[in-house]
Amino acid sequence: MAQVLPPNVSPERFSKALDEFAAIIGKEWVLTSEEDRNTYLDPFAPGNADEHASAGAIAPQSTEEVQAVVRVANKYRIPLWPVSTGRNLAYGSAAPVLRGTMVLDLKRMKRILEINEELGYALVEPGVSFFDLHDALRERGDTYWISSPAPGWGSVIGNALEHGVGYTPYGVHADTICGMEVVLPDGDVVRTGMGGVQGSREWQIFKLGYGPIWDGAFTQSNFGIVTKMGVWLMPAPGAVANVVVSLQDENALAPLVDTLRPLRLNDTINATYTIVNPYRAIIDDARLQGQVRADIYSGPGVLPKDVIARELAKRGKSPWSVNFNVFDVREAGLDLRLEAIRSAFGKLPRVNIDVQRWRAGEPRPGWARVDPGLFALGIVDWYGGPGGHMNFAPVCAPIGSRVVELYELIHRRFVEHGLDCYLGMLNSGNRGLILNAVMFFNRNDDDLTRRGRELYARLAAETAALGYGDYRAHISFMDHAAAMYTFNDHALRRLNERVKDALDPNGILAPGKQGIWPAGLRSFRKTGDHS
Amino acid sequence: MAQVLPPNVSPERFSKALDEFAAIIGKEWVLTSEEDRNTYLDPFAPGNADEHASAGAIAPQSTEEVQAVVRVANKYRIPLWPVSTGRNLAYGSAAPVLRGTMVLDLKRMKRILEINEELGYALVEPGVSFFDLHDALRERGDTYWISSPAPGWGSVIGNALEHGVGYTPYGVHADTICGMEVVLPDGDVVRTGMGGVQGSREWQIFKLGYGPIWDGAFTQSNFGIVTKMGVWLMPAPGAVANVVVSLQDENALAPLVDTLRPLRLNDTINATYTIVNPYRAIIDDARLQGQVRADIYSGPGVLPKDVIARELAKRGKSPWSVNFNVFDVREAGLDLRLEAIRSAFGKLPRVNIDVQRWRAGEPRPGWARVDPGLFALGIVDWYGGPGGHMNFAPVCAPIGSRVVELYELIHRRFVEHGLDCYLGMLNSGNRGLILNAVMFFNRNDDDLTRRGRELYARLAAETAALGYGDYRAHISFMDHAAAMYTFNDHALRRLNERVKDALDPNGILAPGKQGIWPAGLRSFRKTGDHS
Repeated sequence: MAQVLPPNVSPERFSKALDEFAAIIGKEWVLTSEEDRNTYLDPFAPGNADEHASAGAIAPQSTEEVQAVVRVANKYRIPLWPVSTGRNLAYGSAAPVLRGTMVLDLKRMKRILEINEELGYALVEPGVSFFDLHDALRERGDTYWISSPAPGWGSVIGNALEHGVGYTPYGVHADTICGMEVVLPDGDVVRTGMGGVQGSREWQIFKLGYGPIWDGAFTQSNFGIVTKMGVWLMPAPGAVANVVVSLQDENALAPLVDTLRPLRLNDTINATYTIVNPYRAIIDDARLQGQVRADIYSGPGVLPKDVIARELAKRGKSPWSVNFNVFDVREAGLDLRLEAIRSAFGKLPRVNIDVQRWRAGEPRPGWARVDPGLFALGIVDWYGGPGGHMNFAPVCAPIGSRVVELYELIHRRFVEHGLDCYLGMLNSGNRGLILNAVMFFNRNDDDLTRRGRELYARLAAETAALGYGDYRAHISFMDHAAAMYTFNDHALRRLNERVKDALDPNGILAPGKQGIWPAGLRSFRKTGDHS
Repeated sequence: MAQVLPPNVSPERFSKALDEFAAIIGKEWVLTSEEDRNTYLDPFAPGNADEHASAGAIAPQSTEEVQAVVRVANKYRIPLWPVSTGRNLAYGSAAPVLRGTMVLDLKRMKRILEINEELGYALVEPGVSFFDLHDALRERGDTYWISSPAPGWGSVIGNALEHGVGYTPYGVHADTICGMEVVLPDGDVVRTGMGGVQGSREWQIFKLGYGPIWDGAFTQSNFGIVTKMGVWLMPAPGAVANVVVSLQDENALAPLVDTLRPLRLNDTINATYTIVNPYRAIIDDARLQGQVRADIYSGPGVLPKDVIARELAKRGKSPWSVNFNVFDVREAGLDLRLEAIRSAFGKLPRVNIDVQRWRAGEPRPGWARVDPGLFALGIVDWYGGPGGHMNFAPVCAPIGSRVVELYELIHRRFVEHGLDCYLGMLNSGNRGLILNAVMFFNRNDDDLTRRGRELYARLAAETAALGYGDYRAHISFMDHAAAMYTFNDHALRRLNERVKDALDPNGILAPGKQGIWPAGLRSFRKTGDHS
């Protein structure tokens, strides 16, 4: 593979920039060999990973080094793509949107700067993973728990910035952010909230600060590089239960959603729930047993109805189920919650309710999904390895009829494009629901990945016309997802790009991230607008 | 009083602008008579209200009218100060920072556009007050409760934007915001979050949207005019208790704070608490009985120690107390919370714990402070009428020793400046604490108001040096409060003003709000920087 250069940068200028980067952080942390560059390719790329090849990577070790690197990037117009641990799997991993961007790899910045047990927060750097924070808390006696997404090697900062979800009352990770240190695209450094006060000891305890609240604007954006972040931690509960409600009725989705909604709204269910569709029930179980698709079905098209019915029966699974944890400070409080939950779901036909319990002092069980794990990743080899996956994940209000309508459309399109419709519905906070439709593919099967890409683009266009928006997108589809936000001829994108140009006049920070392009690179935008 | 003009605008140009405003919204809604202008003066001004006199007011009735008004304001460089209901009492009411700004009075926009009982939210316009929303919910059967600040005639939008606090689990009002419609300073209109999708039905149920989260940046700011806002509503609880813990020990503040902290952190106490100091205990009780200061004490300086002791005893009050509500979906759940609360506070010496209870079906009691009220305003006549007040309100972590240190400094300075130190500590969310020190004055007593102003400036400078920041400020002191945010030579203000200039190049929107000045008007900034 030949050298990859940033757009509009000559090999000579690029070489000068690399020298200046090396002068700041040391030659060994400026990585441009083919071997190095390959490690930053998306291992789950839906198509040719080279479309998002980086020009290399730079790995600074401190905020000051990040500032200095950013200044050099401005001088030579080298675009930078910050990654924390680079594990944004299904969304591009460590790879940039724009080919020739340099990865700004922050994984060497991995200090846990503070764990405050009086006030329940941690202050961390980008390279701190869920495993790291979890272990540090365990060592201190387990008085606080973290909320972790399915794979635990991701960055606490990166996941919160990308709007990730976990399975505890602190499961909306963006909501657990309290105070950031951010290097702006010109190299200036700002602290948000109370961190704006020199010497503040309130940086991590009060989100609002004085004046505009900035934390949210630095998530899913390319306005700045977050070099420190406060994250709120959950006081260890007194008791936890895991509840699995399984419904044998094929048409159980609407009543399931309508039963969950009031329980989640009044916080009786006080953590993220996951609704599992029939494909997911089968595929999760099959992969757990080491099976791939060919072990179950090798005919044309998606798994047919009769195969689905047979496999569900064989595996003792239901077409629809929901899985969630319930937490309480007190065991008797947990009893009250479970009583209300059993009573509500008990009214549904052909229902089974499984409850497992834990109380303080007992060893923590795997079912709670509150400890970081790696299980979820084995799933991707459903079509045989090397597998990959990407997600289409529109937000839907948890109203039974509405969810069914959107689900049926997504399912129909999966069937038409010949992809098994592996889908989980993750709730977000007390009111939100994300329909996470996963497109698995085998990276050696060009036809399959092509169909997946076409499916994504079609779903984005069709559901946008119905008023839906995707909450997160793979680097290949960030423009498509942004294009769903059509109100007032894409006013939100105009606002984003106006602020982008003000903060990043040279367009060096993560061009194209979330569909936000700096003025000089807007011709790289991939998709026309649906409206 | 002569005509008041915006800075750098001739009477002729101003007159032309007024004609164009009138052409858009009707002559009767362009208000520039002296009588009209007087209604927009701060009735509680700490000094000469004319320092913040407006040039008049404009009252549009729709988003489209706001957009058209903003475009004319740009053409003639007329600064606009948006107010919702204009009840930002203690912080300037409806008056602008910059003399000669025109008030953009949004109180005619007072539609409740939607109340969604399935998902627990309302979509409101700026003129909707807490009373309005409360009444609308009552009419529908009281299945959702609002969180109201002490005076209920304020705007639901205005209070959330200014980071107000209420007394329920939804008491951090900025956290209840979900989705905004915002007219930008150039007249463009944007909807945040899922509202970015044309026809979205998820605008009020998912805060994160796709890309940067903007809602926070439009609070306490001058980046846009919020014309619609989603607000999350609390499902009616099954049971509520009000708890008052009174402590006879003069040194009870630290143990009180340290006992509250873990109970609030794990959400056993699941609503805002208010700690009351001795002055506040006396003054609240005295004003309730129609007494003013002269009825109690008329010697020199602040209330002396012996008078405080006597008045507390006479009124059956304690030097320190805390007041809060506890909510639960289920009565038995409330029992568990109260048991934990009694057990924790029962360990403190010379303690009294008063509990009042309510259960679903009973008439709602006044003590809960969940219904909007007007009581708080009688307080301001402590020094005799016409009274006024303003607040110094730094944020402090709820650690007993730290709170005592900050409180004692504030108290000492109040004594030195000869003002009674009426102070409540309001918690904000699970981790924050705001020390709200109220400076009462009599508006006819120039010496008293002067001392109050000097006290504010001194406290801001001194506590900033210790790492504290104010969370909100009166229009006369917005620059002082902003100046407390010293990190990296005021990097936060640089960021704010950079975005300000990008979005508002003509500097027409609320110049000086929260200390954020547009490029052309920065010479009006009041205070040099402490750092």
